[in-house]
Amino acid sequence: MQQARLAYETLEAVRTRAPLVHNITNYVAMDLSANLLLAVGASPMMAHAIEEVEDVVDLASAVVLNIGTPAPGTVDAMRASLIRAKARGIPAVLDPVGAGATPYRTAVARELLALRPAVLRGNASEILAIAGLSSTPTRGVETSDDSAVAIDAACTLAREFGCVVAVTGVTDRITDGEQFIEVDNGDLLMTRVTALGCSLSALIAAFVAVSDDPLLATAHAIGVLGVVGELAAETADGPGSLRTAIIDGLYELDLVTLERHLRLRVLN
Amino acid sequence: MQQARLAYETLEAVRTRAPLVHNITNYVAMDLSANLLLAVGASPMMAHAIEEVEDVVDLASAVVLNIGTPAPGTVDAMRASLIRAKARGIPAVLDPVGAGATPYRTAVARELLALRPAVLRGNASEILAIAGLSSTPTRGVETSDDSAVAIDAACTLAREFGCVVAVTGVTDRITDGEQFIEVDNGDLLMTRVTALGCSLSALIAAFVAVSDDPLLATAHAIGVLGVVGELAAETADGPGSLRTAIIDGLYELDLVTLERHLRLRVLN
Amino acid sequence: MQQARLAYETLEAVRTRAPLVHNITNYVAMDLSANLLLAVGASPMMAHAIEEVEDVVDLASAVVLNIGTPAPGTVDAMRASLIRAKARGIPAVLDPVGAGATPYRTAVARELLALRPAVLRGNASEILAIAGLSSTPTRGVETSDDSAVAIDAACTLAREFGCVVAVTGVTDRITDGEQFIEVDNGDLLMTRVTALGCSLSALIAAFVAVSDDPLLATAHAIGVLGVVGELAAETADGPGSLRTAIIDGLYELDLVTLERHLRLRVLN
Repeated sequence: MQQARLAYETLEAVRTRAPLVHNITNYVAMDLSANLLLAVGASPMMAHAIEEVEDVVDLASAVVLNIGTPAPGTVDAMRASLIRAKARGIPAVLDPVGAGATPYRTAVARELLALRPAVLRGNASEILAIAGLSSTPTRGVETSDDSAVAIDAACTLAREFGCVVAVTGVTDRITDGEQFIEVDNGDLLMTRVTALGCSLSALIAAFVAVSDDPLLATAHAIGVLGVVGELAAETADGPGSLRTAIIDGLYELDLVTLERHLRLRVLN
Repeated sequence: MQQARLAYETLEAVRTRAPLVHNITNYVAMDLSANLLLAVGASPMMAHAIEEVEDVVDLASAVVLNIGTPAPGTVDAMRASLIRAKARGIPAVLDPVGAGATPYRTAVARELLALRPAVLRGNASEILAIAGLSSTPTRGVETSDDSAVAIDAACTLAREFGCVVAVTGVTDRITDGEQFIEVDNGDLLMTRVTALGCSLSALIAAFVAVSDDPLLATAHAIGVLGVVGELAAETADGPGSLRTAIIDGLYELDLVTLERHLRLRVLN
Repeated sequence: MQQARLAYETLEAVRTRAPLVHNITNYVAMDLSANLLLAVGASPMMAHAIEEVEDVVDLASAVVLNIGTPAPGTVDAMRASLIRAKARGIPAVLDPVGAGATPYRTAVARELLALRPAVLRGNASEILAIAGLSSTPTRGVETSDDSAVAIDAACTLAREFGCVVAVTGVTDRITDGEQFIEVDNGDLLMTRVTALGCSLSALIAAFVAVSDDPLLATAHAIGVLGVVGELAAETADGPGSLRTAIIDGLYELDLVTLERHLRLRVLN
């Protein structure tokens, strides 16, 4: 399958080039994000002090900004990193964890999106909230509202901010406002492992760092984690062993496995 | 066994209703707390910024306040969350990690207890320190002083502050100042897994969220983790595999296993 | 082998005496550091608030200062802890994560080293940066530059600041400016587990806490983790299961295994 080969090429580029990914992420996701990045051969760096974030961006091949445990000082560092990344042509991925759950998170997510990251990845309720289309507050950070209206919102945001928008859920949908890609991998048990979505955003950053096509690279990262996760779920006893197996699976993933299991459709 | 059935009913209510649990916890415990909550079907949310904690409380079915890595800004957020939770009738669980180890922690624990959480869970030395009965500083956060005097202290605190107090150790003791419950599950190897006590406090919050009886719900959460932990310890090679097996075990726990292994006594 | 017996004696002293190790470490390393300390029988305590760090030092047998996610408030706490530890004769271990990657980290590392911790542990590029010998910025926090010049820099720093300096890499080298020790254990897969180097610094603190010889104790901690890591790598499927197996392996390590696998040379 053509897309599996392309996805594997991107994974191999990450393994070979070991892009440094600068993470300003939430406290829950730091450990798993760093471990997933190391598992695919990327080089994670966590730094959030305003005293050094611009210097860290200068070393990085991609930046991840995740608002899962936001606070004003951290948001200042995210803003500075994003501005620097834009100035240097370094792609940034924004993960608007819990947008819609509180007005503060929604405002922070919108402010950072206006600084034009290369990729925005969230679940349906987060994407809806950013687009101003969700009238009821979302229930926390793990909720998913997999509706067609979220896809429309993603498309609108992608066009308005010139970025790739990924709406992840049972089916993952990725768009740059023109093209659409769907990914049908993954397993429901993955929703029982904390920070796996956040860590997917970090993987996306690593893939985008080594690619010229942020739309495809985003879809490929989502597909790779989905394939690894659904295979890991086949033998896992629960979310604890699933987490371990996902880290191992990313490290071991080969082309044959990806070709056999990737369900990724480029729609137009 | 009657208590096993009741405990299982509470667990099933968590699995079905997926209560959102708002955690302001220490940096070490965030990952494991979130994973244990997800393993039992609860929905964890971590948030500590004063800008949003009241909004998060409004979404939550229970709140956990854990002072394991305290700092003034975090304590401000805990205070605001607790006051809001009281105003909204949402139960809060206080975990006074390291109370007695430093004057700062003891003072913070007492200040938060005075705001009347529904449940206070600590080891014997922490409970003694809060009650002002420990003259010597405790040795860090992992120490346990399983003495009868701690039970008296727990009873006094429960009556004074109108809360449930759980003193966990080799035998766990839970009281609301009138009734007493003892739980004899668990395994010594569990003390080698960091943040397992903190994560128990998060589990208690999930159980209390779906119950009308905070005393029983607290004891049931303690019994459930104890049963899962002692069974996991039978096959674990050490604390690393124990941690994974506990997460899996919580996800898989069924009524038959709980009936066979729960050792919980309601004393009066 | 004589060194294996000595290393095992130090490990047994940790297991028996359970030294309290005060950690001011980065957010990524907190979980694994605490778990490795518990696995060898030490008692970890994480505390970073200026309101309590001096009180925590007073309870501790050793202190770890790790600048992996530095910020001004945390650095203030590190400074206060180090000054207090020196005044009380408590050994401190400094882990200068990412020194050389940004000017801020390099400055923080140098400032803390000037306060004279007992042990400095870093990779070659970090040690070179602190010594002012690296003209090009290092690439993040996972890089290793295993050069002879780093050993010279370690020796110079050890003499200037009166401390033990450990340069870890494929071969680990430890010196107090007079004696040199080399350790040849470990496995390349260990570099794919985040925070394992940081957690090694925590282990060193536990070993130094129960020893009169910080040079040997540092080398023994490095050798113990190296032996456990290389044995774990033999059966691990990837970095996820490796991490679990390392925690279990530290808990289970016996003298026979250490004698068979430790490759530690005291050079002069």
